[in-house]
Amino acid sequence: MSNQEVRQKGALAKQAAQKLSIISTSIKNAALDKMAAALEANSKIIIAANLVDLEAGKKKGLSSALLDRLTLSEKRIQEMIAGLNTVKKLPDPIGETINEWKRINGLKIKKIRVPLGVIGIIYEARPNVTADSIALCLKAGNAVILRGGSDAINSNIAIAKAMADAAYSARIPQGSIQLIEDTNRETAEELMQAREFIDVLIPRGGKNLIQTVVQKSRVPVIETGEGNCHAYVEKTADLKMALEIVINAKCQRPSVCNAIETLLVDEAIAEKFLPQIKACLNERQVELRGDEKSRRILPCLKPATQEDWRTEFLALILAVKVVSGIDDAIAHINKYGTKHSETIITKDKKAAAKFQAEIDAAAVYVNASTRFTDGFEFGFGAEIGISTQKLHARGPMGLAELTSYKYLIEGNGQVRK
Amino acid sequence: MSNQEVRQKGALAKQAAQKLSIISTSIKNAALDKMAAALEANSKIIIAANLVDLEAGKKKGLSSALLDRLTLSEKRIQEMIAGLNTVKKLPDPIGETINEWKRINGLKIKKIRVPLGVIGIIYEARPNVTADSIALCLKAGNAVILRGGSDAINSNIAIAKAMADAAYSARIPQGSIQLIEDTNRETAEELMQAREFIDVLIPRGGKNLIQTVVQKSRVPVIETGEGNCHAYVEKTADLKMALEIVINAKCQRPSVCNAIETLLVDEAIAEKFLPQIKACLNERQVELRGDEKSRRILPCLKPATQEDWRTEFLALILAVKVVSGIDDAIAHINKYGTKHSETIITKDKKAAAKFQAEIDAAAVYVNASTRFTDGFEFGFGAEIGISTQKLHARGPMGLAELTSYKYLIEGNGQVRK
Repeated sequence: MSNQEVRQKGALAKQAAQKLSIISTSIKNAALDKMAAALEANSKIIIAANLVDLEAGKKKGLSSALLDRLTLSEKRIQEMIAGLNTVKKLPDPIGETINEWKRINGLKIKKIRVPLGVIGIIYEARPNVTADSIALCLKAGNAVILRGGSDAINSNIAIAKAMADAAYSARIPQGSIQLIEDTNRETAEELMQAREFIDVLIPRGGKNLIQTVVQKSRVPVIETGEGNCHAYVEKTADLKMALEIVINAKCQRPSVCNAIETLLVDEAIAEKFLPQIKACLNERQVELRGDEKSRRILPCLKPATQEDWRTEFLALILAVKVVSGIDDAIAHINKYGTKHSETIITKDKKAAAKFQAEIDAAAVYVNASTRFTDGFEFGFGAEIGISTQKLHARGPMGLAELTSYKYLIEGNGQVRK
Repeated sequence: MSNQEVRQKGALAKQAAQKLSIISTSIKNAALDKMAAALEANSKIIIAANLVDLEAGKKKGLSSALLDRLTLSEKRIQEMIAGLNTVKKLPDPIGETINEWKRINGLKIKKIRVPLGVIGIIYEARPNVTADSIALCLKAGNAVILRGGSDAINSNIAIAKAMADAAYSARIPQGSIQLIEDTNRETAEELMQAREFIDVLIPRGGKNLIQTVVQKSRVPVIETGEGNCHAYVEKTADLKMALEIVINAKCQRPSVCNAIETLLVDEAIAEKFLPQIKACLNERQVELRGDEKSRRILPCLKPATQEDWRTEFLALILAVKVVSGIDDAIAHINKYGTKHSETIITKDKKAAAKFQAEIDAAAVYVNASTRFTDGFEFGFGAEIGISTQKLHARGPMGLAELTSYKYLIEGNGQVRK
């Protein structure tokens, strides 16, 4: 039964992707306009559907944080609409000539940007991901199959229906935008096996969701999200700047992947810096967990466990370690980090260059907060996630990261000798 | 036991990759020189080891084609050495600035090319793949773990040892070049699970090997190889050119992935073209298998089965189909092709443009043989395989396709608001 839904929608998406790959920018933009208007026109229906999900969620005992993420208000629908308008204004990546050259035998080779094809998105109970993924996949010429969490199913159905109907009325091929409505675990697992239909799967959500997809999928996956990020305060750091960056990177939005989880402090400045940062973070209700050396300076700290170095707390908790120098800091980060975002605070240009060269992460900062790892902050105008793998895309993924390429070769009868 | 070999070598490779990522071009090039000299100096040892494999292969009853691929002669070792010299001369992709820009808040963002990390190569009994993969992975700053077929194990051990010893004597970090010596099936399967150590797996070999890796691997895979390629002779084609291209694409080297397997002929010219191409291909011992329409023109053809449209013959067999026009040709190719290489022979620029836009393949040709899909023919100077997937790399993969990137961000105290 569920199997049938995935197979049917997969086959339809594959056909649609073929047509969608050659559709003009103006048709895609007109569809984005119509989809925005449809969200506006259907906002009451969407909010009513969302209320059904919220009632069910409360009965089920979802946490207040989950219920908050699930909630759609007029304001949140306006934000979704604003997102569509932003995507509409972005340049169309498809058809762009990435490179071209001529061979000595006269063959002209051109490398051009094309869509990936069919993108599967597996996500949790955040209905805004539905609107957002539809817009980004469409603008990059891809068909999308959405498989959201069961807790948001009514909201997702309402959003996807409004947007798909609007898109199809604006000459987008049928099947370009589809939601799997059966939220049994089996449908997610079938999507992960559906190499025949799906070119790429992008899981969007928490660690467990992402790890499940990474472990089980036969479809190529872009791994996103987990960020065990560090700030390293080097011995020449401007300590006032270091305080500001560490506070920002930990506290400005602790629940996100580009917030820091561990602070590394050079032993040369630890006695001076640690009491200062402790005072600032205590004010902000941050719990510090220290290694032995930092607890010699701040004996009241709770001890950090081995597990703490690996943990993405996503909360007001910060592990603290005193390191013997830059090599020690780099070794710690490359051992425990998730290759997401790392920052050094330093006045020493050599230390900065060494840190940037040797740290293996998507985004390596000097004298700035890790919180800037984000498609909007990077200037991509949009973001479908932050890749923590090295294949295909790394760091914030915008429209270009939702594309592939092909080679067009023009000859006049060349054969190989 | 085997488990231990994979885990130990994996952990060592991961450490080595870290160091290798920041090694200078001159050290890498000096190592390539030393490795070439080592192959020369050890050629007798390598050939003796190869003889052991050949004896075992003959006893086992390997086909003459397989034995031929397995055989190493002085000449083949000289070809391996020439390959190393070529790779040495290629520009080092690592450290290249792909893009850089400044944000309004003063952050300077630079996107630079970095190695992938640890690359696993799973391949069959072709010892030249050993030398070739070591050279390409090293030049792109990656550690490599090789897992070749059991039939070539003695040859592979001799080659990998000579090259690794030479590299380590030239300041390449220990663990950068490793061969899994236990050729039990389990070691290949463990490599496919080793996400902890391996960043990317590239299977190099036949369809079965590639499909096994694609189906079983939890490590990201670059799928290479299978080429069910087509030539479409459009109604305005220069028929002489069409004959030359079809003959070349089918016969020049039928055993490779960029040779064609199916010929599509426009019905408007089929009566004229089919007898000509049949005569030419008969001369070259090519067996033709025709659809109903082509058999009306050439009744002596063996009928093509449904299965033939899907088959990569890799032999002197060509399926033939008469199509009603370009849409029919495109639909056939997009249905049965493997997204590898496709060509149209035409004088009509509109038909050419339509074919290039609508065909979903890595390389789409106009008036040239599909046999040019190759890293050397594209001017990359080297090739580790031809990707048939859309994620990360598509078509011929040279050094750049063995890399990832990272963002370096420089600030002066920026925090996010």
